[in-house]
Amino acid sequence: MAAAARVFSEKGFGGASLEDVANEVGMLKGSLYNYIKSKEDLLFAVVRPDADELLMKARRLSGTDLPASEKLRQIARVHVEIIDRKLPYVSVYVQEIAGRGISQEWTDMDREYMSLIEKAFMEGVEAGIFADDLDVRVATRCFIGSLNWMTRWYEPGDPVRARAVADQLADVFLAGALARSRN
Amino acid sequence: MAAAARVFSEKGFGGASLEDVANEVGMLKGSLYNYIKSKEDLLFAVVRPDADELLMKARRLSGTDLPASEKLRQIARVHVEIIDRKLPYVSVYVQEIAGRGISQEWTDMDREYMSLIEKAFMEGVEAGIFADDLDVRVATRCFIGSLNWMTRWYEPGDPVRARAVADQLADVFLAGALARSRN
Repeated sequence: MAAAARVFSEKGFGGASLEDVANEVGMLKGSLYNYIKSKEDLLFAVVRPDADELLMKARRLSGTDLPASEKLRQIARVHVEIIDRKLPYVSVYVQEIAGRGISQEWTDMDREYMSLIEKAFMEGVEAGIFADDLDVRVATRCFIGSLNWMTRWYEPGDPVRARAVADQLADVFLAGALARSRN
Repeated sequence: MAAAARVFSEKGFGGASLEDVANEVGMLKGSLYNYIKSKEDLLFAVVRPDADELLMKARRLSGTDLPASEKLRQIARVHVEIIDRKLPYVSVYVQEIAGRGISQEWTDMDREYMSLIEKAFMEGVEAGIFADDLDVRVATRCFIGSLNWMTRWYEPGDPVRARAVADQLADVFLAGALARSRN
């Protein structure tokens, strides 16, 4: 799976062959078929554990009675922590699966994650913490886009930096760029 | 070029062949070679005009003496307007080129666009319009990520809606989600 993640993330899923993956692990292509049925199977196997972990943690945070701003901050931390730890896997997910509607199961997972974040934005508006004219639909998609786009610029391997970036990202979405009058 | 944009955006650049493109236009693959040398050439030809247009308009906005917040809002409008008008082309760019370092020329263009946006954020901080603890590096990357991520969820073909989404996106980055005390 690590070899497949590397190959998919370097060549793209479309450009990679099962032969490339077999070469990467020093195995004959035929032997690979003892473990997986197709390239699609391998793709799903590669990204599934981290996708499950992220969704499970987001669900748990969503169910707490933390304030909406804190839920969003902690979801960002969990998401960035997984990017920091598993970048090639997350890159493959973002590049090949997210928002592409490639199977009902993945579409459902994508949608659930998105709706947990949207729910947190809505809770904030309803509680009067967030601006009442906030467009939660656009805010949610920008929040997820900002996290997913990290796969193109973030240099992994530094959990402290990961936490700092997650907090800065959350700050941008919560407070925005404009200076606030302190009162 | 329209056929290539459709094929690349459906199959992915890695998964698409020049034969697919030739089929899409009802031409023999051999004839296609009268016009282009390689699949890479075709990719660059497909995305270049819109990338040039976006960069040129961002440069022009950057050079005005508009306030930083207005520069960012107008860059978002130009970017979303191109997504609305040319989604398959922008999708191919985002999927295959942005932030991937595939050639010096494209890396330079990516970097210039990013630095124009970063400059606007910095101007805002220096002018005291933006919070002095704003992380302009992270804010810039999230801003670009939010725009590029639109290629995964935005339904094109409605310029009025495009303008509204651009403004909502800019509002999120400028004001954030938190309710402001009006004073």
